[in-house]
Amino acid sequence: MGAPTVKGRARREQILYAAQTAFASRGYRGASIAAIAEDVGLSEPGLLHYFPSKGALLLETLEFHHRRTKEEAFGGAGSFADHLVSLASNHERDPGFIRLLLVLAAESTDPEHPAHDWFVARYERVRIGMERQFAADLGAGLLRENLDPAHVARQAIAMLDGLELQFLLTGGSLDIVTPLRAWLEPLYR
Amino acid sequence: MGAPTVKGRARREQILYAAQTAFASRGYRGASIAAIAEDVGLSEPGLLHYFPSKGALLLETLEFHHRRTKEEAFGGAGSFADHLVSLASNHERDPGFIRLLLVLAAESTDPEHPAHDWFVARYERVRIGMERQFAADLGAGLLRENLDPAHVARQAIAMLDGLELQFLLTGGSLDIVTPLRAWLEPLYR
Repeated sequence: MGAPTVKGRARREQILYAAQTAFASRGYRGASIAAIAEDVGLSEPGLLHYFPSKGALLLETLEFHHRRTKEEAFGGAGSFADHLVSLASNHERDPGFIRLLLVLAAESTDPEHPAHDWFVARYERVRIGMERQFAADLGAGLLRENLDPAHVARQAIAMLDGLELQFLLTGGSLDIVTPLRAWLEPLYR
Repeated sequence: MGAPTVKGRARREQILYAAQTAFASRGYRGASIAAIAEDVGLSEPGLLHYFPSKGALLLETLEFHHRRTKEEAFGGAGSFADHLVSLASNHERDPGFIRLLLVLAAESTDPEHPAHDWFVARYERVRIGMERQFAADLGAGLLRENLDPAHVARQAIAMLDGLELQFLLTGGSLDIVTPLRAWLEPLYR
């Protein structure tokens, strides 16, 4: 087979957006390949030409939306706390994405789930990365010196996941940024 | 029909434990009434004699396990922080229960989900209750005076949910209590 055509790539993206919605609202087991295919005007075999199985489609959906939102990755000036607040603010504008991650992460606590290894690896990577960022802020004299970057990293991940759950359950009427900022501010000098 | 017999009540409980496992591992849509029935040695119509539908079984499962764990409800001496740490410690010993709540809460962010209203009401009740407890600690001069009990309540719920997710994803190798306690301690005088 030759390189994917422009049309082929566009069609793949269209499927990955429909799959995000389906997996986020119905979970892995509840989502149906037939319904996702219908959503983008394909037959089921037509969709399986792009993604060979439901498990493969789920993993590519997670990777695709993960890469898409990574464009706003940390690397700028300011403390890591500023970055977390801006991340939370982006998440408030992208409820479909945070719902995909939250629903699938919760389901993936089952070791038999097709995305279990993906989530275990992702949480481990994020935890180590955040610990390093908080340690850098500690070294730069920004973070209060009695804090343990390993604890703060686990708390930050928990705070984001938990506040996102509250945000989604209330249809957005409880925001993520206010309580996150109220937690972060006293940690810094 | 007469009052439920002792045997009938025992059978109901048996079903509600099997349902907790099934809903926690496979979600609402992935769980099967037939498999739950088989698990407790009943036919599907036999199970439906106790619970008329899958949605009804889900709601009774949530209520039952919620009441069961409420026996350890707050009411003792000490600060509310002490209570939260002891709650987290109970949760570490009951992974089936926290997994049920986490998976179903995440799924229930979909307004069409049969447990959506149950979770919205539960989170609202817990948020108001916790805000009241932190306000009492503030009034008693225990909580630092620059803290807003409304923010701390939302943070506490997020911290528990998020740390429980990490605990479940790592098969218990990351605990809940250590980072929770590290967060709570500096909030108190």
